[in-house]
Amino acid sequence: MGDIPVRLLSVGTALPGPPIDTAALASAFGMDQVWRQWVDTFIGTRTRHLAVDLSTGERRESLADLGERAATQALARAGVSAEDVDVVVFGTATPDTLMPATVNVVADRLRIDGVPTFQLQSGCSGAVQTFDVAASLLSTGRYRTALVIGGDVIAKHYDVKADLTALPPDELVNYVLFGDGAGAAVLAVGDHPEAPVLRSVLTRLSGLGRAPGQTLRWYGLADRDGGEAPASEDYKAIEEHVPVLAEETADDLLDDLGWDRAEVGYLLPPQLSVTMTAKITERLAFPAAEEVSCVAETGNNGNALLFFQLDRLLPVMARPSRAIAVAIESSKWIRSGLALERV
Amino acid sequence: MGDIPVRLLSVGTALPGPPIDTAALASAFGMDQVWRQWVDTFIGTRTRHLAVDLSTGERRESLADLGERAATQALARAGVSAEDVDVVVFGTATPDTLMPATVNVVADRLRIDGVPTFQLQSGCSGAVQTFDVAASLLSTGRYRTALVIGGDVIAKHYDVKADLTALPPDELVNYVLFGDGAGAAVLAVGDHPEAPVLRSVLTRLSGLGRAPGQTLRWYGLADRDGGEAPASEDYKAIEEHVPVLAEETADDLLDDLGWDRAEVGYLLPPQLSVTMTAKITERLAFPAAEEVSCVAETGNNGNALLFFQLDRLLPVMARPSRAIAVAIESSKWIRSGLALERV
Repeated sequence: MGDIPVRLLSVGTALPGPPIDTAALASAFGMDQVWRQWVDTFIGTRTRHLAVDLSTGERRESLADLGERAATQALARAGVSAEDVDVVVFGTATPDTLMPATVNVVADRLRIDGVPTFQLQSGCSGAVQTFDVAASLLSTGRYRTALVIGGDVIAKHYDVKADLTALPPDELVNYVLFGDGAGAAVLAVGDHPEAPVLRSVLTRLSGLGRAPGQTLRWYGLADRDGGEAPASEDYKAIEEHVPVLAEETADDLLDDLGWDRAEVGYLLPPQLSVTMTAKITERLAFPAAEEVSCVAETGNNGNALLFFQLDRLLPVMARPSRAIAVAIESSKWIRSGLALERV
Repeated sequence: MGDIPVRLLSVGTALPGPPIDTAALASAFGMDQVWRQWVDTFIGTRTRHLAVDLSTGERRESLADLGERAATQALARAGVSAEDVDVVVFGTATPDTLMPATVNVVADRLRIDGVPTFQLQSGCSGAVQTFDVAASLLSTGRYRTALVIGGDVIAKHYDVKADLTALPPDELVNYVLFGDGAGAAVLAVGDHPEAPVLRSVLTRLSGLGRAPGQTLRWYGLADRDGGEAPASEDYKAIEEHVPVLAEETADDLLDDLGWDRAEVGYLLPPQLSVTMTAKITERLAFPAAEEVSCVAETGNNGNALLFFQLDRLLPVMARPSRAIAVAIESSKWIRSGLALERV
């Protein structure tokens, strides 16, 4: 990561509403016991949080609301004030509006002003991409403290009046897999010996010759009365490619750092679903690593995922110890990961 | 910009379809001679290019199409091949889809793979933001060559069946001000003594206590049958704040570099409309600077604008000479600018 060590000072997270278990989802959408068993067996995700009220369709929290809450918590935990923030980087696939970018709405509410702000249009690799950009900006020496935020709110595409019984399984599964949420972190250079050092960040487009595995669309005024489905996924391709890309990423991080697989104490694997995470963790085969996952409780909340994993890691991370995180975005296939070390 | 000089090797641009003059626009939407005179007097923008066919509503080119064309031209002009590109940064307010990010669709078509790609959700300051991120990434020493792209396509919100005669002036003006287009540039470190050096890049959120001056919305499945207007602007606030923010930005760049106002040979001012650009250029008062503008012909095509200005600057830029570019985004108010020097 260059000559100046970038450290992870703190993490904050925010989830909308209460956890919604699969039984509640099934009941809201008129799905039966067979479907619930199918979800338990093949997906494994037990609960998720939604920014939309399932019974009324009312939107309870925006991405800016969740981002603000997560950022406020991260700043408080780091003991960093708004005036100390030199740059803000936000990652999301689902901005509240196209303009203003949600990063600027959140920054304004936190009373952060007069600094550069960047918002990445990103998916499941988004949190790592925000770390990559923020760490690079810090490495230039122009900034000392970066606020990094990631999150997604799928409420705009969440049709509570949909007849789920009429949907094919590959569309139906979206209601089970995904959830809303936001996370934030404070990264800084300088004298914070207790904070883990970000040893490496890697993001690589890996889509050549591969069709997109996941597409998420937005509608404009001129195509509100028709057009393609809001979301489509190729779950066969995802099941095929994600474990391979995850392994390549973990290997690249280890090679880059000269770390031995057995030296890694914590693994933060991809979080598409509980069953996929289990398969990938087994394949990655870190013999001494404790798995740090959140997907069983949060669902896949996209750009927020890594922050929830880091939020679980930080309080328990031993000194000394090493951690590896891997995230794979199936949109046009991005593999990404990072390495943390507490010394 | 740090120890390693970042240079602008080339620029490329792409516009959809033929130029559409105000008479053609008036004729398509049933506006009269009085309106055309009003546009000529108060806006001044003579033509714009649209990715949508005005007579049929058919979408001719996507943002990925335009971005690919602009990037191909920029790479060819720099003599840089896809394999030489170490990182891609794309800025837009109007991505074709939420996922995959358009940057990855374009990269894939150019056969760029295995490198980091980032897409910024950005408006009129977007091109400068892409330069800022790309230059910072190059400054870390991890990369040698960056492909930077910016563009916007408003076709999804462009309703060719709209009754413009029923619209209030502040909504009607959107059809006159904006256009579609994309631009690209190759930035690199290394031995390119003939290429201008990027001496400074500045982007600053400047929105504290100010309501957004421009909002652009997207619709999801659950709000296709209602919701707020796709675009809204506060033109009084824009007229009041943009010249002030432009002046602050130019002054900051000069102060930062220790440049004298009289040493600047070229000024690339904000491009909201011809009349606004003229007012701002007068206010910035660079005594020896040649103005480099494109808005009269391209309209305001958002994230593409700076690339069109640079495309006009590069072939005529004297050795030695200095240039200053300023762009202001009225969404949540971002001021931005950059300084180039040919030595």
